[in-house]
Amino acid sequence: MSQSESPWTLARRSERMNPSVIREILKLGERPGIISLAGGLPSPDSFPVPAMREACRRVLADTPTEALQYAASEGFGPLREWVAEDLAVAGMAVSPAQVLITTGSQQGLDLVAKLLIDAGSRVAVEVPTYLGALQAFAPYEPQMIAVGCDDEGPRIDALAAARGARFLYLLPNFQNPSGRIIGARRRLELVAAAARLGLPLLEDNPYGELWYDAAPPPPLTAAAGDGAVYLGSFSKVLAPGLRLGYVVAPPALYPKLLQAKQAADLHTPGFNQRVAWEVLRDGFLQRHLPAVRARYKGHRDAMQAALARHLPAGCRWQLPVGGMFFWVELPPPLDTLALLDDAVAAGVAYVPGAPFFIGSGHYNCLRLSFVTVSPALIEQGIAALGGVIARALAAQALETP
Amino acid sequence: MSQSESPWTLARRSERMNPSVIREILKLGERPGIISLAGGLPSPDSFPVPAMREACRRVLADTPTEALQYAASEGFGPLREWVAEDLAVAGMAVSPAQVLITTGSQQGLDLVAKLLIDAGSRVAVEVPTYLGALQAFAPYEPQMIAVGCDDEGPRIDALAAARGARFLYLLPNFQNPSGRIIGARRRLELVAAAARLGLPLLEDNPYGELWYDAAPPPPLTAAAGDGAVYLGSFSKVLAPGLRLGYVVAPPALYPKLLQAKQAADLHTPGFNQRVAWEVLRDGFLQRHLPAVRARYKGHRDAMQAALARHLPAGCRWQLPVGGMFFWVELPPPLDTLALLDDAVAAGVAYVPGAPFFIGSGHYNCLRLSFVTVSPALIEQGIAALGGVIARALAAQALETP
Repeated sequence: MSQSESPWTLARRSERMNPSVIREILKLGERPGIISLAGGLPSPDSFPVPAMREACRRVLADTPTEALQYAASEGFGPLREWVAEDLAVAGMAVSPAQVLITTGSQQGLDLVAKLLIDAGSRVAVEVPTYLGALQAFAPYEPQMIAVGCDDEGPRIDALAAARGARFLYLLPNFQNPSGRIIGARRRLELVAAAARLGLPLLEDNPYGELWYDAAPPPPLTAAAGDGAVYLGSFSKVLAPGLRLGYVVAPPALYPKLLQAKQAADLHTPGFNQRVAWEVLRDGFLQRHLPAVRARYKGHRDAMQAALARHLPAGCRWQLPVGGMFFWVELPPPLDTLALLDDAVAAGVAYVPGAPFFIGSGHYNCLRLSFVTVSPALIEQGIAALGGVIARALAAQALETP
Repeated sequence: MSQSESPWTLARRSERMNPSVIREILKLGERPGIISLAGGLPSPDSFPVPAMREACRRVLADTPTEALQYAASEGFGPLREWVAEDLAVAGMAVSPAQVLITTGSQQGLDLVAKLLIDAGSRVAVEVPTYLGALQAFAPYEPQMIAVGCDDEGPRIDALAAARGARFLYLLPNFQNPSGRIIGARRRLELVAAAARLGLPLLEDNPYGELWYDAAPPPPLTAAAGDGAVYLGSFSKVLAPGLRLGYVVAPPALYPKLLQAKQAADLHTPGFNQRVAWEVLRDGFLQRHLPAVRARYKGHRDAMQAALARHLPAGCRWQLPVGGMFFWVELPPPLDTLALLDDAVAAGVAYVPGAPFFIGSGHYNCLRLSFVTVSPALIEQGIAALGGVIARALAAQALETP
């Protein structure tokens, strides 16, 4: 074999692995002087640093050996119990034995996909949907099915398109990217319609605790029971750098999911699980979350006011009642990917909407994050964005005969 | 759909996911009063608890936001540089840009398998081989090929069996389970023969720093260059509970491997990476490892003496020059799985050898760990094991006409 000839043959699935468009766009936002409304990061001001410091100290003082040794693939028992108790408060009755601690909820998406998707399997998603989920599913070579949505999520009359799918993936609370919430009645209708179709649900809930007016309705899984897998995350309530999430799986799936977990990384870091539990155990979130919600709500209100003030007529958006994102539709045929260079030149970055959709189209949408940038910079960034859109509309009017 | 009918359809690959025999056996060793030589755990006495405590304090004092926020999928830059410098000392020149930090080296096995194995692909392994690797590869549905080995690892004349394989998986230093090391000359012969066959190598080195007489030869990857992927781990030199490992990949594979990593868990916990780097940065291992080696060498010598004293004639083993395991062959047709109940009744547990082989056979081997149990208990456990084997041989002699 010559030196230049590669001996490597890649698996067919590697064709489905591609760099995230969003990662590339996020790099634009890192340029100095750019107000980035593109990120999907929680505000670092929400990280409970003193509590983390004390928890690390306690774990390494009280149980250093247990925290630093290999541990059970299922996860740390008391943390699994905490999850089950926390879900009970949200209206979902599960046993700690159904909880599998994962290395972030992204790993939950990967493990469920690994367990359920054959090459060519149909997998149904909302439009738009979370890009990280599409990336987790893609290597298993599914045939993606888009379920038509309105402002409240999947339409019941569109669900038949998902018939025969291995699952329907849903992000019901303050969806990334659209910010929308599925209402209580729609949830029950979706669960009933899915049951009629024999369609399992994969419910992802990273943002559920970030509500600004009222707590969201109970998870769909509370009604769907063994017909749903539920994914949760500690990234938005504690800190993403711990990489802690969890899967709640019906007993019929749990043992195989556990095998997949064991093969993937043996177990999620025991040290992190114990530190998180030390932080969480005495009702910490009840004290911590109200301040996070108040802060994020203030940012949301600042962005709502700025959008109303600065975006030209014809732009549409919903007020998100939780989460981190506004989703804006510009008057077609404006193309948010094409406009991004102008926006960055004007000092503001956002995420174009098209990558969040299966297939092509939807070039007129964009996602704005309101949690990491101060209200003053939100005002300044949205003003700049409004100017960019107004100029694009004016240029378009000139071109139209 | 009736309540009892499950809507879930599992992917075909799930048939290849099965509970680890070893996990079940390890539970036996947890019974009170049992001397467990079955575990594959490092000794908790080797965990650098005070250094970890100080590192956690510093990371949360100096860079709390960076440690707790989302981070780059490639890993923490200074830790990637540390890995490249550490490998240079071992004789392997790599760029930090080739280093991908993983959630334990088990994740490295999963990601490489995901990138390289199609259903039906040939994948070659040593006999015996590491069970965790077989578990990582299995869900991608390879056709496993066994490469004949002698006391120094894969035989050159047996390598042709691996022709056309996506890779040959090797654990050259103090292999789990056999304890054997591939010598310097055999390494170069293997690299040359693999290059002639166009056979890529996957080199796994979790135990390389645990040498008791002399440092092992340079990694095969040092000679194979872009024809090899190398896996490393912090589990045996710091602590497994951090779940930190790494992949060193040729530039042709790195971008796709990074996509697979991103889809799998976005990134390995940044907090853990920074804590590990704080511990490692000032030459900590040079001060820490001599004590670990001295401790483990003492245990090894105790087990060697006990085996020589207590095992009946006809039992064979090599003195491991590093790592954590003795590998013992009993006179056939003794069956170590069948003997395990007697051993546990006599107060000692081990791991039967058969699961470490592709296919059936090899019922007369067993693996013994010497690092977690004290020299006094090693003596007591091996004495009990010797008695069990002697009684089995006597019973067999009675049955033979």
